[in-house]
Amino acid sequence: MDFQFLGTSSGTPTTTRNVTGLALRGPAGGWSLVDCGEGTQHRILQTTLSLHDLRAVFVTHLHGDHCYGLPGLLASAGMQNRTATLAIVGPPPLWRFLEGVMATTELGLPYALDFIPIAELAGKAVLPDLAVDAIALSHRMPSYAFRFTERAVERKLDAARLRAAGIAPGPAWGDLQRGVDVVLQDGRVLRADDWLLAPRKARTIIVGGDNDDPGLLLDAARTADVLIHEATYTEAVLQKVGPGPMHSSALRTARAAAAAGVPNLVLTHFSPRYQEGDGPLSLAALEAEARGVYGGNLFLARDFDRYVLERDGVCRRHVPA
Amino acid sequence: MDFQFLGTSSGTPTTTRNVTGLALRGPAGGWSLVDCGEGTQHRILQTTLSLHDLRAVFVTHLHGDHCYGLPGLLASAGMQNRTATLAIVGPPPLWRFLEGVMATTELGLPYALDFIPIAELAGKAVLPDLAVDAIALSHRMPSYAFRFTERAVERKLDAARLRAAGIAPGPAWGDLQRGVDVVLQDGRVLRADDWLLAPRKARTIIVGGDNDDPGLLLDAARTADVLIHEATYTEAVLQKVGPGPMHSSALRTARAAAAAGVPNLVLTHFSPRYQEGDGPLSLAALEAEARGVYGGNLFLARDFDRYVLERDGVCRRHVPA
Repeated sequence: MDFQFLGTSSGTPTTTRNVTGLALRGPAGGWSLVDCGEGTQHRILQTTLSLHDLRAVFVTHLHGDHCYGLPGLLASAGMQNRTATLAIVGPPPLWRFLEGVMATTELGLPYALDFIPIAELAGKAVLPDLAVDAIALSHRMPSYAFRFTERAVERKLDAARLRAAGIAPGPAWGDLQRGVDVVLQDGRVLRADDWLLAPRKARTIIVGGDNDDPGLLLDAARTADVLIHEATYTEAVLQKVGPGPMHSSALRTARAAAAAGVPNLVLTHFSPRYQEGDGPLSLAALEAEARGVYGGNLFLARDFDRYVLERDGVCRRHVPA
Repeated sequence: MDFQFLGTSSGTPTTTRNVTGLALRGPAGGWSLVDCGEGTQHRILQTTLSLHDLRAVFVTHLHGDHCYGLPGLLASAGMQNRTATLAIVGPPPLWRFLEGVMATTELGLPYALDFIPIAELAGKAVLPDLAVDAIALSHRMPSYAFRFTERAVERKLDAARLRAAGIAPGPAWGDLQRGVDVVLQDGRVLRADDWLLAPRKARTIIVGGDNDDPGLLLDAARTADVLIHEATYTEAVLQKVGPGPMHSSALRTARAAAAAGVPNLVLTHFSPRYQEGDGPLSLAALEAEARGVYGGNLFLARDFDRYVLERDGVCRRHVPA
């Protein structure tokens, strides 16, 4: 599984960071987009991603910096002659937003949109390779995290035990690997389930929307490999700004991640006031604040950074050359 | 007067061209935006333009590549604490588009929007320094050109004739320059109007929206200094694509400009199929086609190119360093 940041700024774009967008790839082909701030399609032009391979768009909440890029992205996919149905998952106002924009701007698409309200997500198989569910967060409007979990996790044959039982590699091994029970020539019956090792843990990535209470993700994060969550401010700035915007600080997000024991934490959605360099309004300050309370693998997202989550749960950043 | 292109691609952005947006400055301070495709605010971040100084937004028509950047631009101006009322001029669906987006995405602004439907533009003084009127074009939906004309054109004193009449430079000259009639000590009455030279021609710039019939601008262009108009295709591609999209070719636009005798023609809104270099799908091909029929000053717009229209009507391109 891997994910690539298309925007990591909160509210407004900067010269180096766009507003929110994240491309997520599961083990099967194609990709999903989580949030689609204005200019997401421009970011996509600078990656290897194609709008033809986009399977679904998940929108965490309806603030403009998370959805104003969607109409233009849909229009461009149409101009590129996309024909495959596109799933759109989000809070119900998302559909009203899109219908209104499409009607007033006479946007016709050569493909269908399949809108799935978040409340109906549980029963839908939106993606072939990833199960998706949503977790309600706390923000100025309904906001959600999406949890993506591998559906099929391969089981390996217990080769050592097969050999010890005198069963040499052959067609029986293949059947067992595929989950098919086998009757040997000597009459022994081998039930596939008995000869397959316990499956590895299915990989899980949580992508949060805007949220001032990261503790809401505590339960979900306990079994996740990666938590991607906003850290709009340092705690000092959050205290100064006050609770009105309903965002998290690096401190609060990192504390929740530490409490959940999630091994990989990726912070994003930084206020434009935070710049490179040092000082209290730097990314370094955000990072230091999080490191003070979180001992896992900590990353601060930058636009275009791509992360790979390996089968063994190791998460690595691949900074583009 | 000057204008700067923020986007010159039709339909979808490319890696070098954004969708349509044009910044226009008159002789007074502040600036206006004509069209606001997605990513216009990102372009603005790379210029010296400030959303605080934006006086008005003019939208030629409601296709997404001309208006999908407006909600995000309005939101960012709000986050930058703009307080001045912003005029928004466009076809009536523009207001429904904005109202729908603002309602569904809970976009509140700390400044007022003054929506002026194009039909009511005639009676409004939207800009202090430029008179603006709209001319209906021909496209798949209602589309307009905006004509910007200097309001106040300074008149110079006829200094030679004043001196010949024995009236030496002094307070009387200042009064006459300001249009105030003067009674000299010798009893002579000088009417200001008699001693001011004829005003120079007011500068006029026409900015067209999408349009398959540039001849509709013939009358207006006859008295304009600059015509900025789409040339989406070469004529050969337009013939191949057919009339459905209702765009102009470089040939058709240049022919109309030649017929009107407009001294400066700036082509823009190029299909993404046209690239740098040569060959039939190059900007050079678009340029050659226009030059074949138009003998005035011809320019092909590129993103960020800024043009200055001097008081004497000379138009020059200032390519940023």
